[in-house]
Amino acid sequence: MRAVNVAVLGATGAVGRELLQNMEERQFPVKSLKVLASPRSAGKRVVFNNREHTVEAVGADQFEGVDLAFFAAGGEVSRQWAPTAVAAGCTVIDNSSAFRMDPHVPLVVPEVNMAAAQGHQGIIANPNCSTIILCVALKPIYDYAGIERVVVSTYQAVSGAGYAAMEELEAQTKAYARGEAIEAQVLPVKGLPKHYPIAGNIIPQVDVPGEQGYTREEWKMILETQKIFADSTMRITATTVRVPVMRSHCVSINVETKVKLTAEDCRRLISSAPGLKLVDDLEAQSYPMPLDTSGKDLVWVGRIREDTSLESGLNLWAVGDQIRKGAALNAVQIGENLIAGMR
Amino acid sequence: MRAVNVAVLGATGAVGRELLQNMEERQFPVKSLKVLASPRSAGKRVVFNNREHTVEAVGADQFEGVDLAFFAAGGEVSRQWAPTAVAAGCTVIDNSSAFRMDPHVPLVVPEVNMAAAQGHQGIIANPNCSTIILCVALKPIYDYAGIERVVVSTYQAVSGAGYAAMEELEAQTKAYARGEAIEAQVLPVKGLPKHYPIAGNIIPQVDVPGEQGYTREEWKMILETQKIFADSTMRITATTVRVPVMRSHCVSINVETKVKLTAEDCRRLISSAPGLKLVDDLEAQSYPMPLDTSGKDLVWVGRIREDTSLESGLNLWAVGDQIRKGAALNAVQIGENLIAGMR
Repeated sequence: MRAVNVAVLGATGAVGRELLQNMEERQFPVKSLKVLASPRSAGKRVVFNNREHTVEAVGADQFEGVDLAFFAAGGEVSRQWAPTAVAAGCTVIDNSSAFRMDPHVPLVVPEVNMAAAQGHQGIIANPNCSTIILCVALKPIYDYAGIERVVVSTYQAVSGAGYAAMEELEAQTKAYARGEAIEAQVLPVKGLPKHYPIAGNIIPQVDVPGEQGYTREEWKMILETQKIFADSTMRITATTVRVPVMRSHCVSINVETKVKLTAEDCRRLISSAPGLKLVDDLEAQSYPMPLDTSGKDLVWVGRIREDTSLESGLNLWAVGDQIRKGAALNAVQIGENLIAGMR
Repeated sequence: MRAVNVAVLGATGAVGRELLQNMEERQFPVKSLKVLASPRSAGKRVVFNNREHTVEAVGADQFEGVDLAFFAAGGEVSRQWAPTAVAAGCTVIDNSSAFRMDPHVPLVVPEVNMAAAQGHQGIIANPNCSTIILCVALKPIYDYAGIERVVVSTYQAVSGAGYAAMEELEAQTKAYARGEAIEAQVLPVKGLPKHYPIAGNIIPQVDVPGEQGYTREEWKMILETQKIFADSTMRITATTVRVPVMRSHCVSINVETKVKLTAEDCRRLISSAPGLKLVDDLEAQSYPMPLDTSGKDLVWVGRIREDTSLESGLNLWAVGDQIRKGAALNAVQIGENLIAGMR
């Protein structure tokens, strides 16, 4: 594979660090690496392939000579710097939600729609974390039986709200164990006025309010899934929920298929589909759990059951590492595919 | 209200203790109280209305002269002793799953189908905890708009697996905070071979495996709900999941109605329905959470949204205390209604 000049923007965040680790593990063909962040984080050091790199403040000149830039510093930063990077000839793989619904920007889950990246105009968007996990699980079902409608409820780890939320769950757990008062300053959304404990609690809000009573996270799951499958006729509804888990998301999926798919056939499809691991034997108490999937690359799928309330439908349970496949790994995979496609 | 002679079987368990506390709080008209349990617990003391009562071992003579017996000692014990109690002239309100699907036994949620208790033959069954919370929330929607189909995913507290599971979550949380190894011996089901940590984890198994890949808990939610609404045409599917929360269950409900119901109308219905509290203002970050509902009597409902994937449907989020409305309180309410109906 041709080696490329890489930049990572947001290199000190939860996703940024995982990006570097994933690239290292997968021997991503890095010719040179530039680690960028806000001026606040400039001067910090990160290690990549046993070499220390000093974090530089993002700036207008930083993208000259860079082939591929991973952006993982939030929507504001992406909106500000992606055009600069693209103008400098760099391809941006953006982990934020800034460009995901832009009709000129491909939104890519490699196992589902890598072809959509062809003809990109400099920016490729990495989907929402829960959406990636949902889409990888739905792909073989979509191809084989078609999908009429999806009803999804999520069980989302705190890592989706960044390092601060992970530290908050850790601190709250310790405070609880010591019998001390639990303080909340991050979840559900740092910028909103009210914060609730997540340790011992469940918060039915992920991201800020959106239209029609849904949160933005819920709209992301609906609209991004339709865009990734390039199928606006696929009906989807979602309820997104934060749970006291560190870094793996669970998704309870009810899917109505266009043609009948038995649970046995679904298991066969899942077991041979890319990006998925079938873990499904209730009698043997075998099913996906955050405990087992954290730090893993694949999305685990189990609890596959024919939905007895429908002519043709299934229930399934998918679990994946939010920081890895839900963010960093998916971006790295997009990068790998882009490089493999370069002449 | 006429005072009655009451027995509580399983008085030292999580639900048994809550039964006594609920009766005390609600000034249940107790003429005499007998506290019963397995021989193992005999001799223990419990306090009711500031008086100590000594737990007696359950036996054949214990139900003579008892008007009303609350059974909260599991299915085996109910199957063994309910016929004896009924033969002695006692009415049994049974919290176990032993008789719930028996066509001769009414299955009652007072807010939904108290009338079903009329003509009972000595046993009235208290439904499954998640089912009670679901049914109270669905009732006003069912009456107003009819229900075509329900897709439900649960977020169930450990209290549903009894005191041992609550102690396990507590111990695991403390072990985690101290950086020690987490031991699991109770969840998901004490009698099954494998046990998994619940602290920091999500377990997609509640109760033992049942037919067609569903757990028994999932079948309870499907079949008990149809029985409570006396409507086998109501289509339901369920995924039941254990979460690291102490004693409040959350239920993510997707409901397809027979006629269109707006979110605003649904809010109005919920706000005036018995047993429910409307907590629904996403902009103000107001929604039901286990943090707020534990120890409360009402089922809280919020996150009400019109389902944009259906002609007529809604998403909602219901949360209720598992030990209280999910078990003990519902049984006490059945008792109050029976007594009120006595001449």
